[in-house]
Amino acid sequence: MHATVMYRAGDVRIENVPDAAIVDPTDAVVRVTRACICGSDLWQYRSMKPTDGGRRMGHEAIGVVESVGSHVHSVKVGDLVVMPFAYSDGTCAFCSQGLHTSCIQGGFFGGEVAGAQAEAVRVPQADGTLFPLPVGEDHVLMPSLLTLSDVMGTGHHAAVCARVGPGRIAAVVGDGAVGLCGVIAAKRLGAERIILLGRHPDRIALARVFGATDVVSVRGDEAVERVRELSGGYGAHSVLECVGHGESMKTAIQITRPGGTVGRVGVPQDESMPASLQSFYGNITVSGGPAPVRAYIAELLPDILEGRIEPGRVFDRVIGLRDVPQGYQAMNERKAIKVMVKP
Amino acid sequence: MHATVMYRAGDVRIENVPDAAIVDPTDAVVRVTRACICGSDLWQYRSMKPTDGGRRMGHEAIGVVESVGSHVHSVKVGDLVVMPFAYSDGTCAFCSQGLHTSCIQGGFFGGEVAGAQAEAVRVPQADGTLFPLPVGEDHVLMPSLLTLSDVMGTGHHAAVCARVGPGRIAAVVGDGAVGLCGVIAAKRLGAERIILLGRHPDRIALARVFGATDVVSVRGDEAVERVRELSGGYGAHSVLECVGHGESMKTAIQITRPGGTVGRVGVPQDESMPASLQSFYGNITVSGGPAPVRAYIAELLPDILEGRIEPGRVFDRVIGLRDVPQGYQAMNERKAIKVMVKP
Repeated sequence: MHATVMYRAGDVRIENVPDAAIVDPTDAVVRVTRACICGSDLWQYRSMKPTDGGRRMGHEAIGVVESVGSHVHSVKVGDLVVMPFAYSDGTCAFCSQGLHTSCIQGGFFGGEVAGAQAEAVRVPQADGTLFPLPVGEDHVLMPSLLTLSDVMGTGHHAAVCARVGPGRIAAVVGDGAVGLCGVIAAKRLGAERIILLGRHPDRIALARVFGATDVVSVRGDEAVERVRELSGGYGAHSVLECVGHGESMKTAIQITRPGGTVGRVGVPQDESMPASLQSFYGNITVSGGPAPVRAYIAELLPDILEGRIEPGRVFDRVIGLRDVPQGYQAMNERKAIKVMVKP
Repeated sequence: MHATVMYRAGDVRIENVPDAAIVDPTDAVVRVTRACICGSDLWQYRSMKPTDGGRRMGHEAIGVVESVGSHVHSVKVGDLVVMPFAYSDGTCAFCSQGLHTSCIQGGFFGGEVAGAQAEAVRVPQADGTLFPLPVGEDHVLMPSLLTLSDVMGTGHHAAVCARVGPGRIAAVVGDGAVGLCGVIAAKRLGAERIILLGRHPDRIALARVFGATDVVSVRGDEAVERVRELSGGYGAHSVLECVGHGESMKTAIQITRPGGTVGRVGVPQDESMPASLQSFYGNITVSGGPAPVRAYIAELLPDILEGRIEPGRVFDRVIGLRDVPQGYQAMNERKAIKVMVKP
C-alpha cells in the first residue's frame, strides 16, 4: 500500500510499504477514507533530524474497518469509524476518568505506530479507540466529522481546561485550525465574548463566522494591552493557548486576568514555561495537554450531525495521497489552513 | 516606636521609627500583640541588595486596634484582630470572588506598606483587611490564631488549588511551616493519604502528628520514584508545592499523576517553570499563588477555636522584638521551624 514517510525536515515522500495488518488480537485494520495534515506535523516538517527508516506520518483519520483481531468486539468489519490521534484501551484508570491520552496501554499514531496519511492503518486497542459513525463514507459532513479525530476535540479541550463558560470572556491565542476550533468550542460553551489573537485575514474571517467577537492582530505587549482594553482592564477569564511557542504561552499568561485560567493545547516547544512569576502572583491556573479527543466524540458528534457547529470549514484544500508532500508545503507556507487527504 | 528594618542580606536591626499613624481615612493603626517571621522573609535575608532606607519587615500579625480613620466602620478601637499578609478592600471584583491578594486597591505588608515585626502597624483598607477575633489578646490559642494571618491560610490555599479531597492522594513538597500547615489542610479536606517530602526530623515528627501518613526524605529522581511507589505507580492526585525553588517545583510536577494538580504557594525563585513538557503530556494542572488568606479566616477559625486543628504548633520559639535579628538567624539556620514575636 502507499503511505506517507518523512525522512527529515522538508523531506516527505509517498512510498510503497507493507500492507497494514493485524499484529495483536486487540488490533483493527482500517482502510483510510479521509486523513489530514496537522499543525503539529509541521513541527517535524521544520525540524526533524535525518533518519534512515523515516517516520510514518499522520494521526487523524476516518475510515472503514477492514479486519479485526480476535479480541475486538465493539467494532466490526465494514463499520465507518473515527480514529482519534491517540489509541487507548477505554478501560484503564485514566480512560475511565476521560483522560484517554494517558491510557496505560495507549500511545500515539505517527510515532510508535504507523501513521494514517496512508491507504490503511493498523489501530491498536481498537475497541477503546475507534468510534463508529452512523453515516456513510461520503456523507456531506465528512470534513466536520474528520475534525473529531483531533482539531475539534483539541479546541474543545482547550476551552474545557480554560474553564470557558457563560459570563466569562475567552481569548484564543492562535488562528490555526485548532485555534479556530477553539473559537467554536468557546462559543458552544457559552463564552460572553471571544477574542481571537491572529494575523491571517482568511483565518480571521473564518473565526468571525465561528463566533469570535473581537480580533487582535498585534503581538507581544501591544496584544496584551489590547486584550486588557477589550476585557474591562483585567484580561480574559479563560485563555486558550493553541500555538505552543514560548512567546505565545507568555502572551497567554499575560492576557489572563487574576484568578483566570489558561488551557493549553499547543504542543510546547520549550522545556520550561515562561512568566512563572506573573502566573503565580495572579493566581493564574495553567491546565491542558494532549486532548483526550476520544472522550469528547460522543458529546460533539450530535452538534455536527445536527449542523450546530461546522468545524470542517477549517479544511480549505483537498488532495489525493500522492500530493501529500505538496500539502505539507502549502500548510507550512500558510497557503492552506488545513489540508484534507483522500487516499 | 520600635520596628524591624532589613538593610541587606543578613543585616536585620531593631530601630526607633516614627509611630504608626493614620494616613488615609480607610486606615487603622494596630498595636501588635503577636507577629512572626516567615519563610518568605528568609528569601530577602539571604539575597537582599543593600539599601539606604532599609525595608520594614513583617507581614503576619495579631493586634489591638488603636485608632481608625474616618471611613472605617467594620472594626473599632479595642478590637483584637488578625492582620492577613495582604491588605484588601473586600469589595472589588477580585475580593468579591475571594481573591483578596489581587485586590484592585490592595498590596502587601513589609513592602510598600511598613511591616508588622514592630510595636504597631498602619493597616490600609482596614474594613476589608482586618478580621476581629472573639477572644482576648492572651488567649491560649494565640499561636494557632496567628497562623490565620499567613501560613495556615497558605497551606489551605495550596490544598484547595491542588484539589485535595476524599479519595485523593496528596503529597506535600516542603516541611517548613507552610508545608506543615498544608498537611493539616490536606487532612482537613479529606485526603486519603498524605505524603510529606521533607528531611528534618523535628518537622517530620510534627507532620505525622498533623496527619502525614508517609514521609519521603530522599530528593530528586529518588523522591519521584518513592512517591510513585506509594501511590499505586502513578503519582499523587494533588501536590502542594510549599518551597518555591525550581528543583522543588520540578519534583512537584514529576510526582503528580496524569490529570492531577499542583497547588503552588512557595514564592517562585525563577522566572520560568520547569518540566513544562512533562506537565503538558500528563495534562497536569498547575494552580496557586499568594493565598487570599483573608477569604479563608471565617472557614478556618472555628476549627481552631474548637480544637480540631492546631497549626500553632509550628511555632517552636517565642522571642521579644529586640531579639528578632536572632530569630531570623535561627530560622535561616533551621534551628527553628517558625519564630513568634511578642513585641
